[in-house]
Amino acid sequence: VKTVWCRVEPPYPVLVGPMASDAASAALRGIARDGGWDGSVLVVSDRNVAPHHAAAMESLLASAGLRAGVFLIEPGEGSKSIASYGELCAALLRGGLSRRSAVAALGGGVVGDLAGFAAATYARGIPWISVPTTLLAQVDSGIGGKVAVNLPEAKNMIGAFHQPALVVADPASLRTLPERDFRAGLAEVIKAALIGDAALLALLESSAEKVLERPVDLLTEVIERAVAVKCSVVAEDERDEGRRRILNLGHTFGHALETATGYRRFSHGEAVAAGLVASLWMSSELGYLEAGAVARIEAVLREWSLPVRAAGVDGAAVLSAMGYDKKFTGGERVYVLLKGWGEPWIESNPPEDLVRRAVDRMTGDGGRIP
Amino acid sequence: VKTVWCRVEPPYPVLVGPMASDAASAALRGIARDGGWDGSVLVVSDRNVAPHHAAAMESLLASAGLRAGVFLIEPGEGSKSIASYGELCAALLRGGLSRRSAVAALGGGVVGDLAGFAAATYARGIPWISVPTTLLAQVDSGIGGKVAVNLPEAKNMIGAFHQPALVVADPASLRTLPERDFRAGLAEVIKAALIGDAALLALLESSAEKVLERPVDLLTEVIERAVAVKCSVVAEDERDEGRRRILNLGHTFGHALETATGYRRFSHGEAVAAGLVASLWMSSELGYLEAGAVARIEAVLREWSLPVRAAGVDGAAVLSAMGYDKKFTGGERVYVLLKGWGEPWIESNPPEDLVRRAVDRMTGDGGRIP
Repeated sequence: VKTVWCRVEPPYPVLVGPMASDAASAALRGIARDGGWDGSVLVVSDRNVAPHHAAAMESLLASAGLRAGVFLIEPGEGSKSIASYGELCAALLRGGLSRRSAVAALGGGVVGDLAGFAAATYARGIPWISVPTTLLAQVDSGIGGKVAVNLPEAKNMIGAFHQPALVVADPASLRTLPERDFRAGLAEVIKAALIGDAALLALLESSAEKVLERPVDLLTEVIERAVAVKCSVVAEDERDEGRRRILNLGHTFGHALETATGYRRFSHGEAVAAGLVASLWMSSELGYLEAGAVARIEAVLREWSLPVRAAGVDGAAVLSAMGYDKKFTGGERVYVLLKGWGEPWIESNPPEDLVRRAVDRMTGDGGRIP
Repeated sequence: VKTVWCRVEPPYPVLVGPMASDAASAALRGIARDGGWDGSVLVVSDRNVAPHHAAAMESLLASAGLRAGVFLIEPGEGSKSIASYGELCAALLRGGLSRRSAVAALGGGVVGDLAGFAAATYARGIPWISVPTTLLAQVDSGIGGKVAVNLPEAKNMIGAFHQPALVVADPASLRTLPERDFRAGLAEVIKAALIGDAALLALLESSAEKVLERPVDLLTEVIERAVAVKCSVVAEDERDEGRRRILNLGHTFGHALETATGYRRFSHGEAVAAGLVASLWMSSELGYLEAGAVARIEAVLREWSLPVRAAGVDGAAVLSAMGYDKKFTGGERVYVLLKGWGEPWIESNPPEDLVRRAVDRMTGDGGRIP
């Protein structure tokens, strides 16, 4: 079991290793004791994840001396609603959870965001632990404390900053992850490498094919390194007031792609993959990256069957979606670019023509589309 | 205009004086500028309050250079629901509010709690200002940053700590407050005096009759002093981890009375009045207060037509409600008592017989019932 500390106040550990392990059990027991927990925990999971992992989760909780109930949601983004949130809060009350009880999120980003937001607000905030079971949640959404539900017209519009007390990312739990979800998660892994870990980038390049077989040893190292990048950024900017923007490398283009295609054609990770390529291409055009840089990353993404273009998508719709992207603050157009491997750079108001050409390139032909 | 600073981090001012004043306008303008607000504000109010005060509120906002929309809720506790919260959040989005916009709460406790919770969570937290228009909200619920909505079976079960950026408590706005609400607010005023300001207690005793005429000068002093007590307690314990419990003087009995009577017979302030008497009686029985102390406070409460007993209420139901009171932590039964005027004292596990006698006295005959 590897441990990465997320050094917010108070710091919390991210364990990368088996859910059912003495290390995880001991860590959880210590956290519950030091936090004065009353021993009651509600596990939030979804109907796809629970059959695979609920038993391991319950044995982890039991081994730490905690009593667990379970609340299952329907899988999918539709459960990140105010209605589901209200039902979950009612279940917390029915389960007798007090302000010294805890919530455990077992699942992907939807489960983590919903359960974390309920924990942030039930009794004005109770502790929670995050046990992400998708690669995307293990390296990105499940750590960092940003929790939220959606409004019908805006994703993640209602939420909080509420750090978990513990994260357990079990690489073996990824064995049951659908192939497309695993590959999409790799987009956030390579993003982490690009903004903060050149050695991870080299590892991903050299083992691009092997990682698809999901060997636990390799995954442990990859996840640990990606988590370390995320945690170091979060620790510098817990409340998303500046530095944390670098985590959005590829996301301005990616979100716009998702919006322009009605969130149907691309998963989040797939859209981010194409967005990463667009951001690297802009970085290269501005002279920040050497000429071969884009091709190098495209090769890895292609190996993973991730889109490096989004041919056939309406470029005008993408540009329009970028104009309304909430990442833009007060009229200033901010892009995360790279000035080198592991060296993110915030570019304010790049030439509009350059952005248009990046979108043209992304939505033109020449790339592989899933 | 009097200013009381609530010294949390960052500190914020509570202005006691006219809403439409240069002082309020200048304070708001400075806060909006220093906070980098984008100028958009949504005023949340209810259909009873808005006709009286919305114009003054809008002129205050306009004088500070802010653009305001208005969102009206139905008056009453029913609006402190997850459903209303969702509607308000949707209105914030429809109104184009960004993470640098603000919410303004204009009304009593329900408006403040709902609007404050929406502000705490919209875009993961945006600023809000509190403009309480009931006496209870001006001296208690409108300051301190505890915001919440109800679950069907539990009041204030979902919420946050989210301090306002500014509070404007206008004593003149109390002129339109229904008589019963004004008198109920006086219960929280005398509670503040009892836990933290012996001079305010003397002022209330000497002007118990006069205050009912709501003269602005006297109200300004009374509100300023009560706010100062509340702010000093909040500053010591922003997140309700210990010291803030003293604000619950009279509330353990009061909440139980409300529960035992289905929240119909007594308003919150009325239940607190009877609860204060019960707490002082316990303090006196334990030898903490002199013999005449209870009668002294009862005389003031009677002058205000507030209940000093709750005759006819089922004592067993009150005791049962106290057993489930969430203020009890982990089996420990905690009562806020007084060891002298302005000297609150946390009594752990007092003799159960004493609690029973206090409830018997409260629910027996001999007291005035509204």
